[in-house]
Amino acid sequence: MSNALVVFSGGQDSTTCVYWAKQRFKTVYAVTFDYRQRHSLELESARKIAEMAGVVHEIIDLGPIFAGLSPLTDHSLKVDTYEDSESIPEGLATTFVPGRNILFFSVAANRAYVHDCNTLVVGVSQQDFGGYPDCRHDFIAKMTAALASGLDRPFKIEAPLMNRTKAETVELAAILPNCLDALAYSTTCYNGVFPPCGECNSCLLRAKGFAEANVVDPLLVRAAAEVKK
Amino acid sequence: MSNALVVFSGGQDSTTCVYWAKQRFKTVYAVTFDYRQRHSLELESARKIAEMAGVVHEIIDLGPIFAGLSPLTDHSLKVDTYEDSESIPEGLATTFVPGRNILFFSVAANRAYVHDCNTLVVGVSQQDFGGYPDCRHDFIAKMTAALASGLDRPFKIEAPLMNRTKAETVELAAILPNCLDALAYSTTCYNGVFPPCGECNSCLLRAKGFAEANVVDPLLVRAAAEVKK
Repeated sequence: MSNALVVFSGGQDSTTCVYWAKQRFKTVYAVTFDYRQRHSLELESARKIAEMAGVVHEIIDLGPIFAGLSPLTDHSLKVDTYEDSESIPEGLATTFVPGRNILFFSVAANRAYVHDCNTLVVGVSQQDFGGYPDCRHDFIAKMTAALASGLDRPFKIEAPLMNRTKAETVELAAILPNCLDALAYSTTCYNGVFPPCGECNSCLLRAKGFAEANVVDPLLVRAAAEVKK
Repeated sequence: MSNALVVFSGGQDSTTCVYWAKQRFKTVYAVTFDYRQRHSLELESARKIAEMAGVVHEIIDLGPIFAGLSPLTDHSLKVDTYEDSESIPEGLATTFVPGRNILFFSVAANRAYVHDCNTLVVGVSQQDFGGYPDCRHDFIAKMTAALASGLDRPFKIEAPLMNRTKAETVELAAILPNCLDALAYSTTCYNGVFPPCGECNSCLLRAKGFAEANVVDPLLVRAAAEVKK
C-alpha cells in the first residue's frame, strides 16, 4: 500500500474522495488551498473534516493568485443564481476560474513529491461541473503526463468521481464509513454561507444529487438544527 | 501578430527571451514570481529590466509555496559551490525545486488567458539545466497539451533556448537589440548576491557561456564599476 495526497477543498466531492482514499492508501495527506475564494467558509470545513477523518492536513496560502474573470475570485462580481437546476444554462459556467485545477494539481504535486506519494486523488467529475474544461478526463490524462515528466517520477491522478453523476457520488458517500457524518460539515455553496444559499449552481446541483439518490443531505439537517437553536 | 506572455525570472535566459519576444509579438507581457527564493535579488532585476524593455510586467507573490528539499526555498540549507564548471556533478542538481516550472507555467497560463495571449515564452534549456526534468522538451510538450486542455484554448509554449547551449544563448543575446545592456542588470547567482558569488553552479555556467561565446559579460563589467566606486 502506498501513500496518497488528496486535493481537498472541503466541499462534497473532495470530502468523499478523502474517505474513498482512506480505504485504499496507507497514509492519506490532504491539501487545501486558500486563494481568497469568496466561499472561504470551505477552509473551515476542510479543517474540521480533516480532523474527523484523521488525515494529515495542510492549508496552503496562495494569496490572491488568480486574476480576474470569475466571481469566485473577483469579489466585486456577483454569483449567478437560478430558480432550479433545470434553469442552469449549458456551456461554461460564469464561475470558471481559468487554470484553477492546473495550479492546484501543480502545487499538490510538489507536496506529493515531498511526502513520497505517487498518487494524487482529485474530486473532479465530467458530469456536473459547469463545463469546466479542467474537470474532464482529457485534461486529467494530459496533466498526469505533464506532472510525471516534470517531476521525473511515476505519477498517477485518481479521479474516482470522474464518471459519476452527483447522485452516484452521494451513493458512494453513503457506503463509505463515516463519510455522511463528515458531509454535514462540508461547504458547497459558492456564496460561502451557512445555511447554504440554495440558489447558486453549486447548491442546486448538490440538492439534485441528494434528491435523486434518495438520501437526506446531512448538511441541511445540521442547518435546520442550528436554525432551531 | 498576437500577444505573448514571458515567464520572466530576471535571470540571463528569461531576459534574453523578453528581448526575443519583443521582436515577434504585438504586446509582450512578463510575469515574475516571488516564491521567497534565496536569490530574491532577481525580483529587482526583473523590475529594472522590464522597465528597460518596455513590457507589461507583474510580480506575482506566491508566498512560501514550495515545501522543502531545495536550498533555494529552504534557507537553512546551503547552496553547493564548486571550483569550476567541470567539477559540477552530473545528474539532478541539489537546487531542484520539485514542480517549480509546472507551477510557474500554470499561473502564467491563468494570466495569459486573462490577457488574451495564446503563447507562453519560457527560458528553459535542455543543455545546461542541472538535469531539471521540468526544463526538458518532453515536459514542455506535455505541459502544453495539459494547459490547452485545461483552459480549452489553443495554447503554445515557445522555448527558444531549448536546444541552445549557454554560449549559443549569449550569441543570440548579442544580436537582439539592447539585450546585452539589459543583461548587465540580470541576476543569475543562486546565492542572490551582487557582485555574483562566482562559485554556485549557476554563476559557473553563465561564466562558461560568455567565455565560449567570446563576449564580455556586461554584469561583470557593471560589478567591476560598482566595486571601483
